[in-house]
Amino acid sequence: MSIDKGLLAPVRAGVPAAELVSDDAWLEAMLEVELALARAQARLGIVPVEAVEHITAAVRDHRFDAAVIAEAARGAANPVVVFVQQLQAVVAAADPASAMYVHWGSTSQDILDTATMLVAARVVTAIVADLESTADSLADLARRHRDTPMAARTLGMHAVPTTFGARVATWLQGVLDARDRLRRVRADGLPVQLGGAAGTFASYLECVRDSGGELADAPAERIYTRLTEEFAGELSLARADAPWHSVRTPIADLAAALSITSGALGKFAVDVITQARTEIMEVAEPGAAGRGESSAMPQKRNPVLATMIRAAGMQVPALASTLYAAMLAEDERSPGAWHAEWQPLRECLLLVAGAAHTAAELAAGLTADADRMGRVLAASRGQLVSERLSIRLTPLLGRVEAKKALQAAAFEAEASGRTLATVLAENPVVREHFDADQIAALLRPEDYLGMAPELVDRVVGRV
Amino acid sequence: MSIDKGLLAPVRAGVPAAELVSDDAWLEAMLEVELALARAQARLGIVPVEAVEHITAAVRDHRFDAAVIAEAARGAANPVVVFVQQLQAVVAAADPASAMYVHWGSTSQDILDTATMLVAARVVTAIVADLESTADSLADLARRHRDTPMAARTLGMHAVPTTFGARVATWLQGVLDARDRLRRVRADGLPVQLGGAAGTFASYLECVRDSGGELADAPAERIYTRLTEEFAGELSLARADAPWHSVRTPIADLAAALSITSGALGKFAVDVITQARTEIMEVAEPGAAGRGESSAMPQKRNPVLATMIRAAGMQVPALASTLYAAMLAEDERSPGAWHAEWQPLRECLLLVAGAAHTAAELAAGLTADADRMGRVLAASRGQLVSERLSIRLTPLLGRVEAKKALQAAAFEAEASGRTLATVLAENPVVREHFDADQIAALLRPEDYLGMAPELVDRVVGRV
Amino acid sequence: MSIDKGLLAPVRAGVPAAELVSDDAWLEAMLEVELALARAQARLGIVPVEAVEHITAAVRDHRFDAAVIAEAARGAANPVVVFVQQLQAVVAAADPASAMYVHWGSTSQDILDTATMLVAARVVTAIVADLESTADSLADLARRHRDTPMAARTLGMHAVPTTFGARVATWLQGVLDARDRLRRVRADGLPVQLGGAAGTFASYLECVRDSGGELADAPAERIYTRLTEEFAGELSLARADAPWHSVRTPIADLAAALSITSGALGKFAVDVITQARTEIMEVAEPGAAGRGESSAMPQKRNPVLATMIRAAGMQVPALASTLYAAMLAEDERSPGAWHAEWQPLRECLLLVAGAAHTAAELAAGLTADADRMGRVLAASRGQLVSERLSIRLTPLLGRVEAKKALQAAAFEAEASGRTLATVLAENPVVREHFDADQIAALLRPEDYLGMAPELVDRVVGRV
Amino acid sequence: MSIDKGLLAPVRAGVPAAELVSDDAWLEAMLEVELALARAQARLGIVPVEAVEHITAAVRDHRFDAAVIAEAARGAANPVVVFVQQLQAVVAAADPASAMYVHWGSTSQDILDTATMLVAARVVTAIVADLESTADSLADLARRHRDTPMAARTLGMHAVPTTFGARVATWLQGVLDARDRLRRVRADGLPVQLGGAAGTFASYLECVRDSGGELADAPAERIYTRLTEEFAGELSLARADAPWHSVRTPIADLAAALSITSGALGKFAVDVITQARTEIMEVAEPGAAGRGESSAMPQKRNPVLATMIRAAGMQVPALASTLYAAMLAEDERSPGAWHAEWQPLRECLLLVAGAAHTAAELAAGLTADADRMGRVLAASRGQLVSERLSIRLTPLLGRVEAKKALQAAAFEAEASGRTLATVLAENPVVREHFDADQIAALLRPEDYLGMAPELVDRVVGRV
Repeated sequence: MSIDKGLLAPVRAGVPAAELVSDDAWLEAMLEVELALARAQARLGIVPVEAVEHITAAVRDHRFDAAVIAEAARGAANPVVVFVQQLQAVVAAADPASAMYVHWGSTSQDILDTATMLVAARVVTAIVADLESTADSLADLARRHRDTPMAARTLGMHAVPTTFGARVATWLQGVLDARDRLRRVRADGLPVQLGGAAGTFASYLECVRDSGGELADAPAERIYTRLTEEFAGELSLARADAPWHSVRTPIADLAAALSITSGALGKFAVDVITQARTEIMEVAEPGAAGRGESSAMPQKRNPVLATMIRAAGMQVPALASTLYAAMLAEDERSPGAWHAEWQPLRECLLLVAGAAHTAAELAAGLTADADRMGRVLAASRGQLVSERLSIRLTPLLGRVEAKKALQAAAFEAEASGRTLATVLAENPVVREHFDADQIAALLRPEDYLGMAPELVDRVVGRV
Repeated sequence: MSIDKGLLAPVRAGVPAAELVSDDAWLEAMLEVELALARAQARLGIVPVEAVEHITAAVRDHRFDAAVIAEAARGAANPVVVFVQQLQAVVAAADPASAMYVHWGSTSQDILDTATMLVAARVVTAIVADLESTADSLADLARRHRDTPMAARTLGMHAVPTTFGARVATWLQGVLDARDRLRRVRADGLPVQLGGAAGTFASYLECVRDSGGELADAPAERIYTRLTEEFAGELSLARADAPWHSVRTPIADLAAALSITSGALGKFAVDVITQARTEIMEVAEPGAAGRGESSAMPQKRNPVLATMIRAAGMQVPALASTLYAAMLAEDERSPGAWHAEWQPLRECLLLVAGAAHTAAELAAGLTADADRMGRVLAASRGQLVSERLSIRLTPLLGRVEAKKALQAAAFEAEASGRTLATVLAENPVVREHFDADQIAALLRPEDYLGMAPELVDRVVGRV
Repeated sequence: MSIDKGLLAPVRAGVPAAELVSDDAWLEAMLEVELALARAQARLGIVPVEAVEHITAAVRDHRFDAAVIAEAARGAANPVVVFVQQLQAVVAAADPASAMYVHWGSTSQDILDTATMLVAARVVTAIVADLESTADSLADLARRHRDTPMAARTLGMHAVPTTFGARVATWLQGVLDARDRLRRVRADGLPVQLGGAAGTFASYLECVRDSGGELADAPAERIYTRLTEEFAGELSLARADAPWHSVRTPIADLAAALSITSGALGKFAVDVITQARTEIMEVAEPGAAGRGESSAMPQKRNPVLATMIRAAGMQVPALASTLYAAMLAEDERSPGAWHAEWQPLRECLLLVAGAAHTAAELAAGLTADADRMGRVLAASRGQLVSERLSIRLTPLLGRVEAKKALQAAAFEAEASGRTLATVLAENPVVREHFDADQIAALLRPEDYLGMAPELVDRVVGRV
Repeated sequence: MSIDKGLLAPVRAGVPAAELVSDDAWLEAMLEVELALARAQARLGIVPVEAVEHITAAVRDHRFDAAVIAEAARGAANPVVVFVQQLQAVVAAADPASAMYVHWGSTSQDILDTATMLVAARVVTAIVADLESTADSLADLARRHRDTPMAARTLGMHAVPTTFGARVATWLQGVLDARDRLRRVRADGLPVQLGGAAGTFASYLECVRDSGGELADAPAERIYTRLTEEFAGELSLARADAPWHSVRTPIADLAAALSITSGALGKFAVDVITQARTEIMEVAEPGAAGRGESSAMPQKRNPVLATMIRAAGMQVPALASTLYAAMLAEDERSPGAWHAEWQPLRECLLLVAGAAHTAAELAAGLTADADRMGRVLAASRGQLVSERLSIRLTPLLGRVEAKKALQAAAFEAEASGRTLATVLAENPVVREHFDADQIAALLRPEDYLGMAPELVDRVVGRV
């Protein structure tokens, strides 16, 4: 029984990360965690080395059935209990004496939380790679269009000139911010979980005390440190200074970094969608066979990559809010708050991974039409440089007078279809200070780019 | 590639509704919609009857692969385009002349929106059935415990007496409210979609005009009415007075009714969780082999059904918020807002269906321990009836004096471990008005139940 | 200490509804509720009629200070406890004997929940009025532009022709859907609350039993019915069949209807924003002195009304999700879930009221530029009617061949800047079936409007 | 017209931070920002020093009216335009020549975004201080109860023993995590905004170029760097490497850190609420005159501080989701997405500040009843140590046999009301390995605390 193969979420359908977060991958991660625990315990003399070998051998070719486990998980409200039963049975069938060392001293939450971190680590790595690819492409694009004049828009209206490169640089800024935040989470925010039934580590200690191994008489803290180190090392995850069964910062950190990533990519997408509009056509998505087609309209080339990224960006914030809300976890393990994390976190990981993968493709192939940008910019006949005149005229005419002159000219230019320069040049008050050529020069959009090109250099420098 | 088999969401793993909302079910619904459209068009002479027969025959044994379609859906940002291509190819292989009548005059959104309503209708029907079963069980439980005294709690503290039946009646109230809202949505809120490329119905009209059939010269409105009637009739959905491509009320109505259902069931769950606590043990979940077991602690019987229901209740509101946010859909079809609906709506349907299915099981088997309730109630030694004394003493002593006397007595009773009645009986001011027996009688919890039993009758009467 | 005067939420700053939901208004509603309760009790002989007169007289000129009560409310986590203390003190100062009848038998939640419904009823009434005004204006606009051709857009791209009236009709559809849902909530969903300390009605009963009045020996249900009737009648609210202290359907119903309203208005807003863009300029917001000005750019006329409405539409869904989540209320009164409702509900009411008020202004003054729509439509030189040709050519050429011909022509027309008709007329395969005039006629946008005009009639008919 | 004085949000009513985020405070921050800009410009020779002096003098005693500005803000959809007009008028009245240097080269978003960062910086500082106070108190409490045995609960059921100190340490962990994240945001995440009309810095450059000052001919980047440095220095905010008008990472970082704080405090609150329940009474909130009283029930002491903190924790995640969603900001300034940030961000700041302030009070005064914890722990008669026996018996009996023996004993002990030790001592299989004294010793809760005490040391060490 497969519920979700991606049909209702094209942004993530078939993307590489889908393999990393599928139920099968999660189950595999749970298995890896159990093996890592056994290996770590063996290294510290808590579990016989041969038992670990037998366990490893026993599961080598076994395929656990996620659908069966999922359904049986209803008995415990989590999938680990039944998974462990199956795992023990598999091992017992191969080597009865080793079966007791499966999940030795452990608890469901240790396994599931650590598996979650393992899955998250892999997906975050994949996302960071796609963000880096996206950033590289955007940096190229920004550099190429460092000086391409374009109308900057605020509240949907042409405001002042900018360059297309500077706009791309804002996309890049967001992507780099997201990358930095994900890297930080990856570097130090994804810890193993090792707390036992209620975060006291008692069961693991009991196993150690009863083991007669090297650590049997060691202080509790030393045992925790050693076992956590070995366990984390096996899985390339961070150690945890303390169990975090009911302190859900690692989940919340993921929620935060993923939300910021989804927002950064969504910003890129909404701009592409706007600039690709039929009335604007300043950019176009990369073509591909069949891409962007409509089922009804032969002429259409829809901005489908951006559409998918935006759709992801509209879903992630609400999912993240569920993860934050689940921090209010009662007691040593909440009845419900813990369970409410799993699916939303997976969906966040998947949506952001899909969006990042799609963004890498979009950034790599986005085409920009500098001529078209120029025409769009010119269409307002100088209006969007009126701010410059305002700054020049204010000291000369006073603020009120300058504003009045410019608004009147703007209105007249709009009504008559003439350029703002032409109209202004007819204003005797203005002409006291500037001649027609000066006015025309001041109103050339390409001469009022501010530091748009230099902003490109700055942001590109962060890549 | 299956992402989700239920492993991370036990509340909905393997429940009957999972079959109704899986990607395969959605694909099947899309196929049903295409066939219903063709049949409706045939009945009105727009499509040859034989073509419909050929189409129907051609697809009878064909299995579409949801994973393949999902991945290919990235080309159009929706799964319909590639599905229709495959469907046309299947038909063309069987009867080339009929292939053109597949998806004749139609558009992706008509198919997907109508399929969504079809899926929703089935799931809502299933949820309503589970709510009715839940309501029946709760009504029985409420009746059985109509008069069982229990401590009512507010802000976690014992407040006044109530009956367990009255508490069950609050669960029942919520469940009946939810059922009513879902029924209303089912009855008139799930319309077909038939708008063509941009909601003008132009393409369907063009097909009619070009068909030479009975309606070829009919007014546009009549054609819309007739085709919509036939189409809706085929699918047992509501007609739409107008296309709703960019007017997403039907989705929002679902979001609302599903959120209210999830909230009502969640209320039931949090109360069961609280009352099942080790320190309270007034109720217990129905037992089942292996249910409620811990992987580490042999003695535990966890309230797993309630835990799963609550986990669903924590996820649905945020998903619903995405559906509401997607109502801000630009133009005749939004690049992204439409696409952001699909997966959250499916997850809402699934979580609520899983919660309702689980609630039916929980309600049917929940056991209540009236003795335990009595002991818990008695543990405060009459304190939770002090409100009654307050009402009696206020007219006699004045509000301030009465409150002072009762708070002092409450404090003294708490400190000394004696009953409130004993302590109050030592107060000479109180004794001016009531003797010790009267005080004891006024403080008997079972005589201060208000209309708790009658509330049971009222609410049960709604079932 | 005033936190919020509207500075950070222009959409609702100074709108009439702000008066209805301010802290002062809420406090006033609490007072009205206390008086209504006393009057209802007096009418049933539970409270002396003279006491009510004294109470009413005592508060007539008293001003409660919301800031003081708010701060003191921290002592009880709700404002009612301290408000009642102040109210009793005010009455006691005027007539000591009557003070005990203030809040007689009542509990904080009865007062606050009923006051909330009272406030909500007033705001909902105001919103419905603004929606009706909005609907009237939109109906006028739709009628005026029933036949004005305009490019329909899907995924940001020109799709097929429609009329501006038909687009306005989609706005109107949403507004009417919202109005209907709010009306339904107003008509039967806003009940008084009368449950006493824990929803058992025990305290009110005790007051009745002790009163010696006409109902002193009546059955509990009859007393509940009578008191609720009188209480609801005083406040023009709905009766409640049972207390709903922990069954939060009335709040959830409000959340639903308000979210749907905010979504409907947001849809209107995003379309206005898009159509007002400098590159499109098909519509313009109503002008007003100083409106839409930028602090920096003299030429700008920003679509500020739509901007504010959209901003509201982006905030309401998340607030509604909190209200839904608060349905998971433990016991007879939740420590926290109840308290988490108040501010989000007020903000929802206020944002939606502000959005509706702003929408009424926007709808009343929105100007549409039919010429501009025509020019925008013509700019694609017939491309957006290619669907029609597709329907005509498919039966003649076969689907594949027809699609190929049209895509090639679309590409060629785009590349060469010629009309689609011109290019198609050069295609000999097409020419076998249609001559150049026929092709040109088929590609006239104004002849492929589908039932856009008739949809206007339909939707306008609902007003 | 004041909407919000705190009446509906006791958690933040009258707390010190309320002063920091009120509309008046925001307006004051806007004024500070304008003055800081003028001072920074003066220092670089862009604005005459005397003008700044005149501006400063002119506003010294002027009171801007937030309600008036709020209402007028509807004309521009933001409050800056009208505020600047008023400010210029005030200055012009005092010194006409200086008025043009008010807001010189600036834009609404620069002022409002920087003011927002200024407000946020102050509130975050206040929150961090309250978190530190909370942490100190919790560290004390944890130390004092480092070794106090208490039942650990999972899914509401007694699981294994822990210590109260270890539970307090989990609260402390969360609080310290939150503090660290807020500190990081404060240290480097709260930048000034200085981009001009559309983030190109053009207007500021134009002012410089036209100024004849020292930087008149400097490269654009150097001017940006110098002006940003001076501006940021004036306000003690971070510099921005580039404008972030449409790259909303600073807002999103705040959303993240505030959500994590609210979650950490909410975890503390839900545990206090549970442990304060009448049936548990392991902890009690600090008493204060009138605190925790009910309006109806004289005996009650409600956990009101925790209730308020939890209520805040239920509201913040949804508000944060709106801030994340607003990252999808079109163009150089979004019509609506920017505007949707303001009120939710203020509410997040305020709720978290209120929760932190309340938590500091709660942590400082929380009383813990070690005797009661002992009695609650003992009530299950050894059941919650059965895990330990399981670990000891498994190697001896095998996993299946051990589990069977323990579950049977658990059941029998529960049914008969005897201790688990007594029942197990009757089991001959168990007795083969342990005598009755050994069994009793193994089942002593206080000997199975794991590393609970050492975890206290670890976490306390972080303070």
